[in-house]
Amino acid sequence: MKRSERIVAMTYHFKENPRKLISLPYFVDTFEAAKSSVSEDIDIIDEMFQSLGVGRIETTAGATGGVRYIPDYDFNNGRYFIEQLIKVLEDAERILPGGYIYMSDVLGDNNYVRQIGKVFGATFRDIEVDYIVTVATKGIPLAYAIAEVLNVPIVIIRRDPKVTEGSTVSINYVSGSSRKIQTMALAKRSIPEGSNVLLVDDFMKAGGTIKGMENLMEEFNATVKGIGVLAEAEDEDEERRVDDYISLLKIQEVDERTEAIKIVPGNYFDEK
Amino acid sequence: MKRSERIVAMTYHFKENPRKLISLPYFVDTFEAAKSSVSEDIDIIDEMFQSLGVGRIETTAGATGGVRYIPDYDFNNGRYFIEQLIKVLEDAERILPGGYIYMSDVLGDNNYVRQIGKVFGATFRDIEVDYIVTVATKGIPLAYAIAEVLNVPIVIIRRDPKVTEGSTVSINYVSGSSRKIQTMALAKRSIPEGSNVLLVDDFMKAGGTIKGMENLMEEFNATVKGIGVLAEAEDEDEERRVDDYISLLKIQEVDERTEAIKIVPGNYFDEK
Repeated sequence: MKRSERIVAMTYHFKENPRKLISLPYFVDTFEAAKSSVSEDIDIIDEMFQSLGVGRIETTAGATGGVRYIPDYDFNNGRYFIEQLIKVLEDAERILPGGYIYMSDVLGDNNYVRQIGKVFGATFRDIEVDYIVTVATKGIPLAYAIAEVLNVPIVIIRRDPKVTEGSTVSINYVSGSSRKIQTMALAKRSIPEGSNVLLVDDFMKAGGTIKGMENLMEEFNATVKGIGVLAEAEDEDEERRVDDYISLLKIQEVDERTEAIKIVPGNYFDEK
Repeated sequence: MKRSERIVAMTYHFKENPRKLISLPYFVDTFEAAKSSVSEDIDIIDEMFQSLGVGRIETTAGATGGVRYIPDYDFNNGRYFIEQLIKVLEDAERILPGGYIYMSDVLGDNNYVRQIGKVFGATFRDIEVDYIVTVATKGIPLAYAIAEVLNVPIVIIRRDPKVTEGSTVSINYVSGSSRKIQTMALAKRSIPEGSNVLLVDDFMKAGGTIKGMENLMEEFNATVKGIGVLAEAEDEDEERRVDDYISLLKIQEVDERTEAIKIVPGNYFDEK
């Protein structure tokens, strides 16, 4: 097999298996190539991935060593993407009664969701998590897209426990926006004791739902290592119940009367 | 830029943008390479993708022409994957009261879900659909994984309309397993009139939910072009209400007393 052919196959394989350790002998055997040739191929891919701003190939030496594709997403590309997304969302047609913004189309479009997954994937790149936890419904594609980058499973908290979940642990919590008592349930066997988790949701206002997720995680003796929300909005009536989170969008104003929407990049873009 | 470097970037780009038409001048400009070199690069990638069984690069001639990566998934690889999945699922520990099988972990694991998405993506490769429609909750990662292969948006039907959906269309339907009347709701603006849709769900027994989805699609004047369910199970008490669907798994027996589970490949694997 020629170098160019090996490089197609290896690039595809890395992209398909982010964060998975691949032993060099696997490539050597698959391509019937010399170890030195395979190493050179990997160097070319590594350099090109870095110059494209999509991550790098990490090499671990030793008997249990190998290579691993660690995806990344260039901060400026992320910021540019979020600015484009803001333009899409700042459309008066999206205003819903109650001052909400219709976002279901964006949250169902893999072209947006994959990018959002990459930004969060880069954000939480160095945090070791075992599970990404979200609550039904709209945050699920988002959680899945992040899971594809971090290569960990997702776990879905439900409002209504179903027979197909087996026995569940449930808690009650007070929703910030409606001030109603609501229920969250999660299958007992979904998260082993002592796991590290990342909480993900599409939208946060007073933070009641995220707070509820945190409380539910305590029931599983799980440690919350990070919180990511796509969009946050200020709640004039109530103080936020969650301090430490990453948001990509901040909804500052939705005025039904004047049809004005004001969205700015979220706190992820503050620090740098 | 050298050929091997261009090939890394192009392979990554194709894998990142399935089914998207890319004009040759885009590559020529990006890499500052001759058109003939880029064409040769694409031939190498095309041949390698075909030999890996992961699809091909389709070339369209003319002024509006370009190249497009059409993902595919080798039938035998798909069958092998399903056999492995059956081994994972045929574990007595998964048996739940009522004769259900716990599958939430599999449906949350991107390593399984991505493969399932590819098998369905290959199955529905030649059907032109505008949207993939699923019903909350567990089918969502599945629908998203198929959407990534077919590059179309997903639309999520909910049991409980929420304020963030805007105005919704809802129907009542009779669930096959519980024989209860249930509700399905979908945001009015989610599917334009006359769309072609693919229905996806994780599990089908009597088919009441899928039938309900079909009825709801009628309200949107949408045409159902295909139906895909991960697992089907026979309902001894009731005839199936849906005829034309593709399943990847068929649950033949779940015996709580003897702890026996029998799963076979679904009807997708019958025909060939």
